Amino acid sequence: MSEPLDAAIEEKVRKSFAKQSMMKSIGAQLNSVEMGHVVISAPILDGFRQQQDFGHGGLIFSLGDTAAGFAALSVMPFNQEVLTVEVKINLLAPATGRLIATGRVIKSGKRLVIVAADVASISDEGTQTPVAVLQGTMIPVNI
Amino acid sequence: MSEPLDAAIEEKVRKSFAKQSMMKSIGAQLNSVEMGHVVISAPILDGFRQQQDFGHGGLIFSLGDTAAGFAALSVMPFNQEVLTVEVKINLLAPATGRLIATGRVIKSGKRLVIVAADVASISDEGTQTPVAVLQGTMIPVNI
Amino acid sequence: MSEPLDAAIEEKVRKSFAKQSMMKSIGAQLNSVEMGHVVISAPILDGFRQQQDFGHGGLIFSLGDTAAGFAALSVMPFNQEVLTVEVKINLLAPATGRLIATGRVIKSGKRLVIVAADVASISDEGTQTPVAVLQGTMIPVNI
Amino acid sequence: MSEPLDAAIEEKVRKSFAKQSMMKSIGAQLNSVEMGHVVISAPILDGFRQQQDFGHGGLIFSLGDTAAGFAALSVMPFNQEVLTVEVKINLLAPATGRLIATGRVIKSGKRLVIVAADVASISDEGTQTPVAVLQGTMIPVNI
Repeated sequence: MSEPLDAAIEEKVRKSFAKQSMMKSIGAQLNSVEMGHVVISAPILDGFRQQQDFGHGGLIFSLGDTAAGFAALSVMPFNQEVLTVEVKINLLAPATGRLIATGRVIKSGKRLVIVAADVASISDEGTQTPVAVLQGTMIPVNI
Repeated sequence: MSEPLDAAIEEKVRKSFAKQSMMKSIGAQLNSVEMGHVVISAPILDGFRQQQDFGHGGLIFSLGDTAAGFAALSVMPFNQEVLTVEVKINLLAPATGRLIATGRVIKSGKRLVIVAADVASISDEGTQTPVAVLQGTMIPVNI
Repeated sequence: MSEPLDAAIEEKVRKSFAKQSMMKSIGAQLNSVEMGHVVISAPILDGFRQQQDFGHGGLIFSLGDTAAGFAALSVMPFNQEVLTVEVKINLLAPATGRLIATGRVIKSGKRLVIVAADVASISDEGTQTPVAVLQGTMIPVNI
Repeated sequence: MSEPLDAAIEEKVRKSFAKQSMMKSIGAQLNSVEMGHVVISAPILDGFRQQQDFGHGGLIFSLGDTAAGFAALSVMPFNQEVLTVEVKINLLAPATGRLIATGRVIKSGKRLVIVAADVASISDEGTQTPVAVLQGTMIPVNI
């Protein structure tokens, strides 16, 4: 799934990412885009926490869903983008440190793309702890 | 499920809501708290949109997950709060207008609370359109 | 959602049900078919139990998934049937007695149908206990 | 996750599998039990099909859920077994041939075990095709 990507597709993914104001608000960056495999990361900003000061579930979901969606987008024809049909997230540990979300394509069909994502927390020392796993469905739409 | 709530429990829910910086950032308000039934609403602020300018899936998830979590909290003993174990969201329509999320308890057990939530979009004219349905699991933790 | 159904559609649903050998094996019957609303029931036969002698999760899932799928089928044009894209099930209580599954359509779109189902257990005295809730996605396919 | 398993734990898993009448009815066998990793396989018997004669979703779910549950059981203390809290399944392709389900532990916590499973179809020529992916939650219970 980690094949080199056509430059035009990578640019399409990067432009779509840049258009998501949510990604800007949470301070996310698009780390890498490969065929069916996309990595996004973000800090846990003060404005995106839950009642115990950990990263909010909605922040973790946003990163995982977006990484999975862009992984799907990376395998779409140039004239299509994708929308989320549904996603299921299991939270594994409180979100601290910096978050890194890896989205990947499980199966790309003509009508739907099945995706998954992992979100991990990276401590200042570089230790990664799994924070969430997601499994979902994306649908292609013509641009 | 919509029985009157002990005032101390309602205050606990409202305090917990106030402590979630994420809810403040998205401009959410806690509309109502009843036994096993909580309503939250929020505008779609400019900073919480996806690439087509609709409300981001992460925003919709945040509202639904939080409404469901507080519905669970409303049926917990005073010395417990809840964390999200897992949530599944189906997106039904693009999020526009103002969003309203209704969380409810499906089953409250000793070890887990099964919850659901609906998120709808309200137009300026007051028409409601279903935007998402969520089904999930919360776990009680001692404070 | 519980509108009267065209007789031809009801017959299509009943024929499709009759063709599922799984439904025959578990002893299921199709109790009612309305527009977007289908009820199926079955005993817990000796061959469909888990290690503690309760109804197997796979049996509960089969009933809920099938009821949800037929609810979707009941709102499809005559020349289409549906396949399950994905389903999420929360189990609420051990399955005993006779099981009754109610499927319903949450949203019927052109490309996908979002569905839900409840499965309850009915004791010999007629008391119903919720056993599971399901939320999922069906996709229309041309026959 | 594929460490050697204590013989007593493996025996506990095998005994629990043997007690599931559902596994017997579908003709399933327990192929391998390792620490957090269990493989089950089964034919698609005539009595477990859907309306187009493919393996029923409930059969696929039964295999995936059971493989995931036994993966969780393999990491539990001797005096505990597990029950399914919830599972989400995405179906990827029609089920034909022989089915093989691989369950694995994603995270084993004190109160819950997060699991995943893949189900593949094996043709007579030995080609494997992914049929489903599952992600779920198991809960330990004292025996």
